[in-house]
Amino acid sequence: MAETYRVGLLGHGTVGAAFEQLLAERADAIAHITGVRPEVTGVLTRSRGDFEEILAGSDLVVELIGGIDPARDYVLRAMRAGKHVVSANKLLLASHGEELWSTAREHNVQLRFEGAVAGVVPVIRVLQETLAGAHVERIHGIVNGTTNFILSEMARGGTAYADALKRAQELGYAEADPTDDVTGKDAAAKMAILARLAFSTPVTLDQVTYEGIEHITGEDMNYARDFGLALKLIGTAERVDDGISVRVHPAFLYPGHPLASVNGSFNAVTVESEAITEITLSGPGAGGPQTASAVIGDVISAMIPPASTPETTASLPVVADVKSAFYLAMEVDDEPGVLAQVAEVLGMQGASIKSVVQRGLGGQARLVMVIHPLLESRFYGAVQLLARMPFVRSEPRAIRVLDEEFND
Amino acid sequence: MAETYRVGLLGHGTVGAAFEQLLAERADAIAHITGVRPEVTGVLTRSRGDFEEILAGSDLVVELIGGIDPARDYVLRAMRAGKHVVSANKLLLASHGEELWSTAREHNVQLRFEGAVAGVVPVIRVLQETLAGAHVERIHGIVNGTTNFILSEMARGGTAYADALKRAQELGYAEADPTDDVTGKDAAAKMAILARLAFSTPVTLDQVTYEGIEHITGEDMNYARDFGLALKLIGTAERVDDGISVRVHPAFLYPGHPLASVNGSFNAVTVESEAITEITLSGPGAGGPQTASAVIGDVISAMIPPASTPETTASLPVVADVKSAFYLAMEVDDEPGVLAQVAEVLGMQGASIKSVVQRGLGGQARLVMVIHPLLESRFYGAVQLLARMPFVRSEPRAIRVLDEEFND
Ligand SMILES: NC(=O)c1ccc[n+]([C@@H]2O[C@H](COP(=O)([O-])OP(=O)(O)OC[C@H]3O[C@@H](n4cnc5c(N)ncnc54)[C@H](OP(=O)(O)O)[C@@H]3O)[C@@H](O)[C@H]2O)c1
Ligand SMILES: NC(=O)c1ccc[n+]([C@@H]2O[C@H](COP(=O)([O-])OP(=O)(O)OC[C@H]3O[C@@H](n4cnc5c(N)ncnc54)[C@H](OP(=O)(O)O)[C@@H]3O)[C@@H](O)[C@H]2O)c1
Repeated sequence: MAETYRVGLLGHGTVGAAFEQLLAERADAIAHITGVRPEVTGVLTRSRGDFEEILAGSDLVVELIGGIDPARDYVLRAMRAGKHVVSANKLLLASHGEELWSTAREHNVQLRFEGAVAGVVPVIRVLQETLAGAHVERIHGIVNGTTNFILSEMARGGTAYADALKRAQELGYAEADPTDDVTGKDAAAKMAILARLAFSTPVTLDQVTYEGIEHITGEDMNYARDFGLALKLIGTAERVDDGISVRVHPAFLYPGHPLASVNGSFNAVTVESEAITEITLSGPGAGGPQTASAVIGDVISAMIPPASTPETTASLPVVADVKSAFYLAMEVDDEPGVLAQVAEVLGMQGASIKSVVQRGLGGQARLVMVIHPLLESRFYGAVQLLARMPFVRSEPRAIRVLDEEFND
Repeated sequence: MAETYRVGLLGHGTVGAAFEQLLAERADAIAHITGVRPEVTGVLTRSRGDFEEILAGSDLVVELIGGIDPARDYVLRAMRAGKHVVSANKLLLASHGEELWSTAREHNVQLRFEGAVAGVVPVIRVLQETLAGAHVERIHGIVNGTTNFILSEMARGGTAYADALKRAQELGYAEADPTDDVTGKDAAAKMAILARLAFSTPVTLDQVTYEGIEHITGEDMNYARDFGLALKLIGTAERVDDGISVRVHPAFLYPGHPLASVNGSFNAVTVESEAITEITLSGPGAGGPQTASAVIGDVISAMIPPASTPETTASLPVVADVKSAFYLAMEVDDEPGVLAQVAEVLGMQGASIKSVVQRGLGGQARLVMVIHPLLESRFYGAVQLLARMPFVRSEPRAIRVLDEEFND
């Protein structure tokens, strides 16, 4: 039985509760990686737990209360007591980051905060580790899921802002009071943190210029379609002349831009640096389990720096024959009933047609189909049968189609 | 003056030479983060350097030779001598990974290999750290830039495979002997490494089923447009029943798929897990400086686990007025010369029109424009002037446009 690594949990709301559950589920796997088994040994909410007791009984403290007070005080006291801290609190870091980071350095503890920006999208780790040695020129980000959801809704149906906001609230993508999200303040806090890491210069929330999405109309989106533009709430942190600019505002993107196709509540961040051109990271930017996953990644890193690839824990068979959807194209006689016969041959192997286009070419016709997922061996069996049919005039061409909905 | 951290460099080709240069350029920044200054203290090629001497004189060894022999022997000997190793050698890891990883564990050294899969796209780090505690269900990847470039060329112009390959060779995206790329073998090696990390089960290259792109025709792509499909060489590693499937083959993607819009020589990887839904990472998958950047990120991590956010090194001014392109829409009198007058007013502030759509609405007209980048203060100055013009019938609506080509 592995030794216990004691985690003190401050806050037990959306993220805190998800964290506790996910940590319990993954405790064995984490013990395999780190050699010690993490366990929540104390929980603080407004009605439960005592901070001093929790602190004394933990090796690491996770702060998921949010806001400045009392979170700031708890985080500082935990670090001064020599505990590593993991937090997802963007407001705290964007307002009091230097104080917290210098306390961490002074007491030689880790302060990790992946969950504070773009949830499980690993932009903090990438800036601090992968690109630690890079000279970052610019960051663009969609770092607020609520506004991206609202803008995506507006773009989809020409929906008015108020209606899209209401829908976001009904679906749980926006809070009852959405002010911090729709004014751009939440995104501004995140951009302040990213700018601080990318440029090694102090940046606080009050230095970030921001503009929200409340004034955007469905018509703006409709007109902009003439130019193929997509509207997003974009955070920018970039070097300009001898300084930096950090700002958040709605902006149109041309279709080729890596952030143009990020829709719904997803977040995405693009980091540019001369040596690497640019990398883009995207995924769910918020949500209990997603943010909790980011927090767990941080906890593991704080527990023990992963110096090595752990031993394998399984010896799973590597399977060769799997299910796939297929594109299938061939030339056939242009006669009535041919499509029906093709469908029948496919059906004998359990293959069914999802969509089909048939085009007459004078005398013969071209059949192009997408086939619903089935075991590859069965599909190729059907293709062999088809190739031998008298009305098939060309070698059938088969290429897989990734069809996520069915492919598992 | 910071102490020197001695890096022994094996191989000085495309990646090795870029690494040496980039490390020298970034040595001061790295010294700030780690407290020690990295320096290449020995270089081995076929014509230069002595392995034993380099080993004795280094704290960490970077292997950028490629292939199995002698790279395997050097990496093993370095680790047995207690040195951390960073490598970008996918073939070696996909063939002898378990031997290497167990040697690393035994000798308590780090073996890092971000550059081996998808260049600077941080998929190794994300699997090993961010998602260390996650239960990964599936990985999809475009992990070979050569084939993605060829397929993108074919899709763009209906170009034949042979012509697209030739163009890739001329532009340096494909080697003189492209066999390992176009047959899918290179991608298969990378998927073996990702599957090993994601599922903690041993996977070697010879267990990966792969199919290349040599048989794909321009017509396949043309026909598939009827379905809105994009063709990519897709690597898959996923759980199926009680085993796993690891494979590489061409596959069509529906337009909404996060990998569908990854074009040219870029790489991208999607990781799915229940708790996080999915995250996508993309960027340049190869190239000297790009891969060297990944290697440097690994070197820094091996030098000292970044336990803390380093002090700020700069105190850059945060600038408020920056350049931006704009969308500008307003209603105007539908009279000859109005557009010319609008252009003139804009021109007075240095704003010039990039594209414009004018639509008559009976009596009045709607003007929608995209304006070339200029200082925001000047643009808003122009908008104020326009709002006062007698032929302007509505409040002008201004929204920023991200226009990468010009925006710096
Ligand atoms: N929700 C997300 O999707 C998301 C995503 C990224 C980051 N975050 C960040 O994660 C943090 C937590 O967010 P959340 O959505 O989980 O918040 P939440 O649901 O409101 O939960 C807050 C928790 O903190 C506790 N708390 C509040 N004030 C306290 C106090 N004075 N003393 C002790 N406990 C107190 C609350 O206790 P009671 O139960 O007694 O009220 C509750 O358990 C925030 O920093 C937020 O910005 C959230
Ligand atoms: N190129 C890329 O974009 C890229 C991207 C990702 C990963 N990688 C990986 O990075 C590694 C290096 O690739 P590369 O493109 O830089 O290769 P490269 O340009 O061919 O360079 C190989 C270097 O290794 C040296 N070398 C070869 N055999 C040797 C031996 N027996 N003893 C000592 N030195 C030897 C060569 O020395 P000589 O100068 O004497 O020939 C040369 O300096 C490979 O594992 C590759 O898969 C490359």
